[in-house]
Amino acid sequence: MKVRFDRIARIQAAMREQHWIAIVVVNHDDYRYLFGTDRAQPRAIIPFQGPPELVAFTGEEPELRAALVEGEVRVFGSVGGQINDVVGRLRDLAAEAPAEWATGGRFKVGFQMWFATPAFLIDMFRQVNPKVEVVSSDPVMDPLRTVKEPTEVALLTEAQRIAGLGMDRARALLRPGVTAQEIATEATYAMMKAGAEGTSTPIYVNFGVETCMLHGRLSPKPLERGDLVLIDLTPTVEGYCANLARTFVLGEPDARQAELIAAYREIVAAVRAKMLPGVTTAQLDAAAHEVCVAHGFGDYQVYGIGHGIGLRFEEPPASTIIPPHKNLPLVEGMAVTIGHTILAIPGFGGARFEDVYRVGSAGPEILADYPIDPIVTAR
Amino acid sequence: MKVRFDRIARIQAAMREQHWIAIVVVNHDDYRYLFGTDRAQPRAIIPFQGPPELVAFTGEEPELRAALVEGEVRVFGSVGGQINDVVGRLRDLAAEAPAEWATGGRFKVGFQMWFATPAFLIDMFRQVNPKVEVVSSDPVMDPLRTVKEPTEVALLTEAQRIAGLGMDRARALLRPGVTAQEIATEATYAMMKAGAEGTSTPIYVNFGVETCMLHGRLSPKPLERGDLVLIDLTPTVEGYCANLARTFVLGEPDARQAELIAAYREIVAAVRAKMLPGVTTAQLDAAAHEVCVAHGFGDYQVYGIGHGIGLRFEEPPASTIIPPHKNLPLVEGMAVTIGHTILAIPGFGGARFEDVYRVGSAGPEILADYPIDPIVTAR
Repeated sequence: MKVRFDRIARIQAAMREQHWIAIVVVNHDDYRYLFGTDRAQPRAIIPFQGPPELVAFTGEEPELRAALVEGEVRVFGSVGGQINDVVGRLRDLAAEAPAEWATGGRFKVGFQMWFATPAFLIDMFRQVNPKVEVVSSDPVMDPLRTVKEPTEVALLTEAQRIAGLGMDRARALLRPGVTAQEIATEATYAMMKAGAEGTSTPIYVNFGVETCMLHGRLSPKPLERGDLVLIDLTPTVEGYCANLARTFVLGEPDARQAELIAAYREIVAAVRAKMLPGVTTAQLDAAAHEVCVAHGFGDYQVYGIGHGIGLRFEEPPASTIIPPHKNLPLVEGMAVTIGHTILAIPGFGGARFEDVYRVGSAGPEILADYPIDPIVTAR
Repeated sequence: MKVRFDRIARIQAAMREQHWIAIVVVNHDDYRYLFGTDRAQPRAIIPFQGPPELVAFTGEEPELRAALVEGEVRVFGSVGGQINDVVGRLRDLAAEAPAEWATGGRFKVGFQMWFATPAFLIDMFRQVNPKVEVVSSDPVMDPLRTVKEPTEVALLTEAQRIAGLGMDRARALLRPGVTAQEIATEATYAMMKAGAEGTSTPIYVNFGVETCMLHGRLSPKPLERGDLVLIDLTPTVEGYCANLARTFVLGEPDARQAELIAAYREIVAAVRAKMLPGVTTAQLDAAAHEVCVAHGFGDYQVYGIGHGIGLRFEEPPASTIIPPHKNLPLVEGMAVTIGHTILAIPGFGGARFEDVYRVGSAGPEILADYPIDPIVTAR
């Protein structure tokens, strides 16, 4: 455990500018970002001033204290009384804060409002803290989190390298009769042996017409000669996420399969050529659209060709989750995927090639180059 | 895909009793329960009458329609316009429903309010549907979901059997110097090879004092002779969750380790003896408490010795998530774990032995018996 007091100080400065009294951390990624470790129930309060406060159970206290190498961190000890402790702490912070920070008598508290923040928890929080207004912590966290430090880029690169090892293993297994379950099992094993903690999403292995699925899971039918194959791997390393998708054909592609794959490769090239600081994901989508139209696939485009990636699998900018994100300009140092959305011909099949890039001043820098080699000679 | 129209009909009858106009499904487990399959973005509307409605994207439509073996299921086709479609559909349902179902002009719509329902999605839903009141779908879903059908018990049993294979593999690896990562990798591989889709939670492998952690992850330091080891495995089969936890000592346990392990085994025996239809989890905790006190561990007890399990890893009754659940009486046919909470001596270590049981009329029926064999001869 290495508490990142530097990051906490920057967050506290931004919170004071926003007039928030605290950020309540309930998510793995924020916890990891601030405390350099993970717990199954990550819970902490970052007050607008003073040391951060971990919320833990009695049995965990000595271990957590021992792990706190430097600095002052409070640990709530009472089992079950956690909720009361948090309520009391926020009341104290409201008393400490300048009165003019309150709007309509209520002080703002930031929460990560994303997939992993449960609605029932927020509803419960609102109920027991009627004097508090819950706001999304994005305005404070995003400017820090989206621009990756070199150590973060290194971890993202390592995760992406490991995804490549999983893809190698998956590709080597493609033959008539292989099951998606077998591919997922062997790819997971290869990636965990190489150091992945697991995957941030279930592995997608889709065959044939099921490659159409926007987000497929494991196809139930074994692979057949001539099938399209779509594999999407998402290993994590110290919480940092990879995202590597490849499309294959078992045997010689037919004309439509070849056209679909060629179109997607052109989309990736067109988007790469556009990706520069200041460009929005809407502009990246527009570049993809031109290619789709040229191939007669304009109707099949799903918008959202790229998304931010880091300690969350999808981070800002993530226009498929938060539509206004499509107008966020890219910033140098962001980590962004290209190839997120499927290009699918309904009833036929789909293609996707996804990699992770660092947004560089001179263009996208791929984190771990992986071959695009879609034709698998039928074994 | 096998739509469970029987379950949907029972849910619709219960919804009409509650005067809800719809349940909106956004969770894998409910989707799987009702549609017999899973998708990465499970989205459906169960109206108070008429056929259920899937929310899908155009590219997915032919595949979903082809999979609908029987019955009428509407698929929303418009990409991006999904939110509008849902708003419009709920407005229509409000117009169809008896006017007296509304409270203060608002009609009730059920959502699963649990870990996997994101707060931002519910907030967005409330914003675009101001005439709708979001309520927890538990009162309608729980009576069906908590009592398992024989086919569900069979899948839970298979998942638990596979957890045993993972535990065999993990136990065989215990030796000085082995890492938690290696154990997690090999156990995951063994379980996926046997048919598990993956695990419903990250695998917990904790060594030494870290066995104190209420919910540990992978210990960073390799195993040492004399360490306590706590392993908790949670494979899933067709979405059904297993939960198998075992505590080991590498070498001869010292007196305190032996006492801790003996106490936990007595807790399990005491709780098993109490588990009958009509008993509450508070009463099970009381049985555990007597044992803890007898061993001088009364201060270290964490309440919530068992929880429901099924398509969710923790289902009602789940008193550690929803405190009022501690007063829910067990019902014959529920699947419930015993051994959920850690018994930890702060700064020393913890123990836990967890298995899954069917609540039978004559007592708990263990789904897949697995040995308790805590002493691993140092290799």
